[in-house]
Amino acid sequence: MNEVKVIEIKKSVFAENEKDADALRVELKNKEVCLLNLMSAPGSGKTTTLIQLINRIKDKIRVSVMEADIDSDVDAVKIKEATGVPSIQLHTGGMCHLDAEMTRQGLDNLNLEETDLVILENVGNLVCPAEFDTGATCNAMILSVPEGDDKPLKYPLMFTVCDLVIINKMDVVPYFDFDIERCKKYIHLRNPKAQIIPVSAKTGYGIDALAEWLRREVNVGE
Amino acid sequence: MNEVKVIEIKKSVFAENEKDADALRVELKNKEVCLLNLMSAPGSGKTTTLIQLINRIKDKIRVSVMEADIDSDVDAVKIKEATGVPSIQLHTGGMCHLDAEMTRQGLDNLNLEETDLVILENVGNLVCPAEFDTGATCNAMILSVPEGDDKPLKYPLMFTVCDLVIINKMDVVPYFDFDIERCKKYIHLRNPKAQIIPVSAKTGYGIDALAEWLRREVNVGE
Repeated sequence: MNEVKVIEIKKSVFAENEKDADALRVELKNKEVCLLNLMSAPGSGKTTTLIQLINRIKDKIRVSVMEADIDSDVDAVKIKEATGVPSIQLHTGGMCHLDAEMTRQGLDNLNLEETDLVILENVGNLVCPAEFDTGATCNAMILSVPEGDDKPLKYPLMFTVCDLVIINKMDVVPYFDFDIERCKKYIHLRNPKAQIIPVSAKTGYGIDALAEWLRREVNVGE
Repeated sequence: MNEVKVIEIKKSVFAENEKDADALRVELKNKEVCLLNLMSAPGSGKTTTLIQLINRIKDKIRVSVMEADIDSDVDAVKIKEATGVPSIQLHTGGMCHLDAEMTRQGLDNLNLEETDLVILENVGNLVCPAEFDTGATCNAMILSVPEGDDKPLKYPLMFTVCDLVIINKMDVVPYFDFDIERCKKYIHLRNPKAQIIPVSAKTGYGIDALAEWLRREVNVGE
């Protein structure tokens, strides 16, 4: 039960990541597979949010998960145990991000014929993953309340490249100096089109709205 | 009052960062300047902790601060307003870390003759800054309670390179699933020699112990 496949990712040989990412996106669209690249700082609750989200959608959408981590397979095991969906671990061997070729190495280990949605949990890092197009068909990030509402000012590119910003740990707002309206304003300064969904992966608050957003992305109606 | 010097850091020309870092460390020791490289994930409370710490030690130790950020000068302004010590902002222009040459560009803008301790607040990132020796005479990191006690398993190098791990936001322990003993065990798995000091920058808890540690590093007795 505890065993998950662990893939040791090799450094990319492609110099032109953007071209490669565009090519991967076309391949995925031809296969009718949606690839969601989920990014965040360490400890913002990516895995816990995914567990809640996947359990909400897995009856209607066939989901697979790729968990990228420098080391350890803690997350892939957690996802598999808590949701039962196929989950593999990508070891980046110290690398701080994934690019399109590294993402492809992971996808090669999934059965895409039987998948509507692949969720890639990127390395916990607000800087480098924003710089490398993974070939994903949509990009999302999680900002958690304890990190502070000023993060869009400090990590501008991450907020610019994401279609969706999930604000997690809304249950602890009373204990932190976090102003959600100010945060939304800062996010829209960086990216006027960004969708923003506040959630608490702990209590389940907002997960329905998140599932709704994802269903639209995957184009699977109820 | 609100104005701080902003330095646009250029990419390093030195290929051999380790040699350059060793050279910088020798220079600093000759000048009797301690350089503390403070690292953490985004939003762990580096700036707030520094304000508390600096106000506790500034009568005995002459402190200067270099705030590294991709963009914005929010932090340098905060430090200057709240402590009155010299504070400059280093803009990394999107770069995810600082190396020795970039650190030197910052130091060139400080008056080291009148400084005992320079604190470098590195870019908020648990991955890349751990890979690049800045030439600092000591390395410390902050892990905050909301990030989770499993971070030493997931970001091993960061915990390996630090002399000190500060565990911040201890005031919110009741609201998170964070086991400090488990966290200490994981930290010591990565780095048996690491000092660990739990603090709350919000309430002031543990700041005395932190100041004590820093005084020893700077070699300035009471």
